[in-house]
Amino acid sequence: MALSNGCSPVTRVAIFGGTHGNELSGVYLVKHWLNHIGEITRAGMEVTPFITNPRAVEKCVRYIDVDLNRVFDDQHLRKEITPTLPYEVRRAKEIHCRFGPKGSDQAYDVIFDLHNTTSHMGPTLILEDSKDDFVIHMSHYIQNSMAPLQCTVLLLDHPGMKYSTTRSISKHPVGVEIGPQAHGIVRADILDQMRRIVKYALDFIQYFNEGRVFAPCSINAYQVLEKEVYPRDENGDLIACIHSKLQDCDWQELNPGDPIFVTPDGKEIMYKGESTIYPTFINEAAYYEKNHAFTKTQKVTLQAQTLRCSSIQQ
Amino acid sequence: MALSNGCSPVTRVAIFGGTHGNELSGVYLVKHWLNHIGEITRAGMEVTPFITNPRAVEKCVRYIDVDLNRVFDDQHLRKEITPTLPYEVRRAKEIHCRFGPKGSDQAYDVIFDLHNTTSHMGPTLILEDSKDDFVIHMSHYIQNSMAPLQCTVLLLDHPGMKYSTTRSISKHPVGVEIGPQAHGIVRADILDQMRRIVKYALDFIQYFNEGRVFAPCSINAYQVLEKEVYPRDENGDLIACIHSKLQDCDWQELNPGDPIFVTPDGKEIMYKGESTIYPTFINEAAYYEKNHAFTKTQKVTLQAQTLRCSSIQQ
Repeated sequence: MALSNGCSPVTRVAIFGGTHGNELSGVYLVKHWLNHIGEITRAGMEVTPFITNPRAVEKCVRYIDVDLNRVFDDQHLRKEITPTLPYEVRRAKEIHCRFGPKGSDQAYDVIFDLHNTTSHMGPTLILEDSKDDFVIHMSHYIQNSMAPLQCTVLLLDHPGMKYSTTRSISKHPVGVEIGPQAHGIVRADILDQMRRIVKYALDFIQYFNEGRVFAPCSINAYQVLEKEVYPRDENGDLIACIHSKLQDCDWQELNPGDPIFVTPDGKEIMYKGESTIYPTFINEAAYYEKNHAFTKTQKVTLQAQTLRCSSIQQ
Repeated sequence: MALSNGCSPVTRVAIFGGTHGNELSGVYLVKHWLNHIGEITRAGMEVTPFITNPRAVEKCVRYIDVDLNRVFDDQHLRKEITPTLPYEVRRAKEIHCRFGPKGSDQAYDVIFDLHNTTSHMGPTLILEDSKDDFVIHMSHYIQNSMAPLQCTVLLLDHPGMKYSTTRSISKHPVGVEIGPQAHGIVRADILDQMRRIVKYALDFIQYFNEGRVFAPCSINAYQVLEKEVYPRDENGDLIACIHSKLQDCDWQELNPGDPIFVTPDGKEIMYKGESTIYPTFINEAAYYEKNHAFTKTQKVTLQAQTLRCSSIQQ
């Protein structure tokens, strides 16, 4: 077997909850693990549960000043601390110091950031790099472990879009996004799915560290293309909502001419793109303020070579 | 036919949206009707669509300072206007002047207040008086018109609980509560249900005003008993969530010994009541801060005598 993809052992892992303070599955699980670390303890690994935006969690809001999940870029991380610096930028600098620095050898190996969505996406893994064989193998392992429940992979790797996510300070960032769940509530079924994903991910890392060799694999993923905006009037008020034929249809194909919005008068607004896309984040509550009705994606296949831990002797 | 229940014609009706600024079906419909009044116009009636909490709507939050839907009592309505008076109390005084005064002859005849919930309640009418024959007949008419879709009636008539709702300033208050819908989003299916309820309600009022005689009727309703609180630790953090066997089971019977919560360790917490109840508002996001896991109700039958408009000559 070709050992083409030696990779260092993964010894430092963090699990983030509360990056958005009203997405409660991660908040609930991380708070639980802080007091019951045994469930996420694995030999040879330091696994750190961490509430990233405690003030937003306390108020049960997405953020206090700005979206924490969009400020982990140089521009924000280099800002001087002043009294007017937005809370989340100050917090980002702290997280960057504690779990990064981003792009450095000292950065945490893996960060899982736990999110919820009001969209009917089901359990979803969000990857940021189509070439990260370690994360592709991990996703493959998680998908097989979650079956028959589908666990979808969304790829946020698009030249025109930079997300600057909280987890991006680690070497291998993984978003875990599960919906539908209203913000501000905990659902037992969603909680169970999120917990299983974290368990399988930690199992995978442990097997990897112990020397298990993972044969080449490929996974299907949905790569982000661009966003569709809401139709609004001159006051900024919505003049149409997501069409009932699109609502709850995340990951299903949408073709040119399919209805995407409907006005109060019953007028249908059709999708005007030139090719089939796969919408997701359909009708996410937090994206109304971003005027973002859904995210367009295209199907891609991600391939990973044989994976083995480079510290293990043959 | 016994004409035991003569009732004045209903000439002034208001439709409130945005009492909770993040419950968007009502906000969306009321904003639409403000610009397209024809849909809710009926001969001989003044029908006024009205956004009750515009600042909360603008921020897409439940409220700015206090819950607007709990301050329409004497204690709040009589407060002097001072710079520190909570926004919603000031607003309540304005609404009271414009659509009340509560308990007076000048008060609006009917106010529909449009709400959403994250609970799986389906379309629900909320009544405040088990003796209000006019509203019981209206509910009966709406239920028949909505069939086969079930439209449930919740009765907020309990000696130990005063709600002081926004709509309570009218002679015949009617809450319209539809879920599940995450706060901060508009769903086309929920919108359609809410719109149909308002249409049928206005149709009923018009028929009533025109002299149609409504034979005695009875409806099934769920009367509020009390609330179940969440299990929390000494820091106020949740230590259990709604059990998956209770989640989404609004209006279904819950018996002593049935599971209602589950802890992260998988420990089930059972319902300890002494008799069967019918829970609703299960896992409503806005009630976490009130520490209110669900509302217990009992089944009752509401009866109304023959109803006819007292101004119509035989």
